[in-house]
Amino acid sequence: MNDLFLRACRGEHVERVPVWMMRQAGRYLPEYRRVRERADFLTMCRTPELAVEVTLQPVDLIGVDAAIIFSDILVVPQAMGMGLSVDEGVGPIFHAPLKHEDDFAQLREPDPREALAYMLDALRLARRELDGRVPLIGFAGAPWTLASYMIEGRGTKQFAKAKRLLVERPDLAHDLLAKLADQVGRFLVAQVEAGAQAVQLFDSWAGALGERDFREFALPYMARAAQHVRPTGVPVIAFAPGAAWALEEIAEATGASVLGLDWTMDATTAHARTAALPVSRQGNFDPCWLYAPPAEIRRRAHAMCDAFGGQRHVANLGHGILPDVPPAHALAFVEAVQEWRPA
Amino acid sequence: MNDLFLRACRGEHVERVPVWMMRQAGRYLPEYRRVRERADFLTMCRTPELAVEVTLQPVDLIGVDAAIIFSDILVVPQAMGMGLSVDEGVGPIFHAPLKHEDDFAQLREPDPREALAYMLDALRLARRELDGRVPLIGFAGAPWTLASYMIEGRGTKQFAKAKRLLVERPDLAHDLLAKLADQVGRFLVAQVEAGAQAVQLFDSWAGALGERDFREFALPYMARAAQHVRPTGVPVIAFAPGAAWALEEIAEATGASVLGLDWTMDATTAHARTAALPVSRQGNFDPCWLYAPPAEIRRRAHAMCDAFGGQRHVANLGHGILPDVPPAHALAFVEAVQEWRPA
Repeated sequence: MNDLFLRACRGEHVERVPVWMMRQAGRYLPEYRRVRERADFLTMCRTPELAVEVTLQPVDLIGVDAAIIFSDILVVPQAMGMGLSVDEGVGPIFHAPLKHEDDFAQLREPDPREALAYMLDALRLARRELDGRVPLIGFAGAPWTLASYMIEGRGTKQFAKAKRLLVERPDLAHDLLAKLADQVGRFLVAQVEAGAQAVQLFDSWAGALGERDFREFALPYMARAAQHVRPTGVPVIAFAPGAAWALEEIAEATGASVLGLDWTMDATTAHARTAALPVSRQGNFDPCWLYAPPAEIRRRAHAMCDAFGGQRHVANLGHGILPDVPPAHALAFVEAVQEWRPA
Repeated sequence: MNDLFLRACRGEHVERVPVWMMRQAGRYLPEYRRVRERADFLTMCRTPELAVEVTLQPVDLIGVDAAIIFSDILVVPQAMGMGLSVDEGVGPIFHAPLKHEDDFAQLREPDPREALAYMLDALRLARRELDGRVPLIGFAGAPWTLASYMIEGRGTKQFAKAKRLLVERPDLAHDLLAKLADQVGRFLVAQVEAGAQAVQLFDSWAGALGERDFREFALPYMARAAQHVRPTGVPVIAFAPGAAWALEEIAEATGASVLGLDWTMDATTAHARTAALPVSRQGNFDPCWLYAPPAEIRRRAHAMCDAFGGQRHVANLGHGILPDVPPAHALAFVEAVQEWRPA
């Protein structure tokens, strides 16, 4: 049984650096696209057999050291009553974004064991099918990121509607974020009960907030969600891309075992910033570097491993893998990490 | 004659902090929208009378301490032969993005005095009409930002095509960036000759690059463009939003008089990072904070001025003003800066 990933998350000694890739169950794999031809994105999320099939593909085809359950962060707002469509390429769309005070009040707070049973079933099935080959990761979106999608209705560049709420109606924003933090926290605990051996919290739109707003509206609620998970003892990976300035504060506030690192920092900088923190580090290869020729990918992956030094490091990309990356390049990245040893 | 802006750029003592707003000649003003109803965006850029009319609106209506000529950073690639449409709301689109080696080779390098005469005429006319009331700012896009638009064809989130070129064909990327640096540099010098009293270089997509790529593909070419301007003696404002980590390197490499600061840092952090550098600072109010009630805008604007201390500071937003900000809120921001005095 390959438990390198879990040991690296816990800061235990590892013989080699474990590696997985965010969005590794994704469109860059022809095998994924074949499943996707048979079902739309949300149907794949809601059908455990399909979700597990694509969850396992990168383990079988690329040889990653961890599986992450195939799902989407927006299943939580959907379970709270918000109609959702996901069109890969365009991105997710909420049919009726939150606008009026009533919209906020009408959000449901269902038991995730019921409302999100399909994802928990997928986790159980994935654990069975993995049969100990590699650990299984669960995940959820952090409250600020979910809230901003729920208000905007879709991804935007500026997040002006969501940020407008923060200054116009901070009371409403705090209520929503608190509700989301507990909903997400309970969901993550349910995922652990269903078999997730680590969980990642994605605050994907952390970079839309400046320091002041991040500290008031994002960090405390990401921390509140993470605190739900602490009694379970499974590692929490806290990932807030675009907020590299806040790494120390994120580690402190969330108590996460692992800090996710985006690609904006060189690995040497990322290591310098995190080496003294009581966390493991996950990241941070620029996904666009996977377009380089495989020999160059290998050089850069080795340089990343050199920078982190081989311990308390889970190699990963600094953002999701892009859909037009050749699978051979993803394989080159994974193999380069797995063959690397400290000098 | 109000030359507070120029004195603050040069680091000279000012009695009060000058203020202007990026994209101040823009859709948030009903008076701008009335001009825009008569002509499309690029026609406004290419018609000096219209460009000057909207350039002067924020001086007359909001009382800003500097005017910036109405134009667009993409007029440079357009002058080099690339067909362009600009649809406000959707953003600019190049009809035939650069793809093949031939596309790169076919780019023209025209004399900006001819190919961009319409913008230089607008600058001359604006200087006449301003008649010394406030200084006039020219601008251009920095090479990396222009290159990424030329390759992508439009703004994107990931800039994957442009970044792909950097790893697949670094030779082609460097050739394009060098060409753009000289084209932009010559254009800025022509703007100074036509009456611009300061120029701003916008590297709007700096944040799409990690450290390594920024240092190889963005910074040297932004610096090369800035160096063209140095003999003219007018202040250069270097603005690379999303690359706050690089402020010290940008100041050093470009020799800019003024560092533009985005909204991602609190003003206290921005001041701490820049106080010891031989530059003035421009920024950095979060544009979304202009949605706050005017009394709150005033408090936050004063806090920003407090943080920078009143000297070597040009108050501005940390990004362009958003189109749905009430003009009264823009006015509250400008007046709050203008009434502020150090404690």
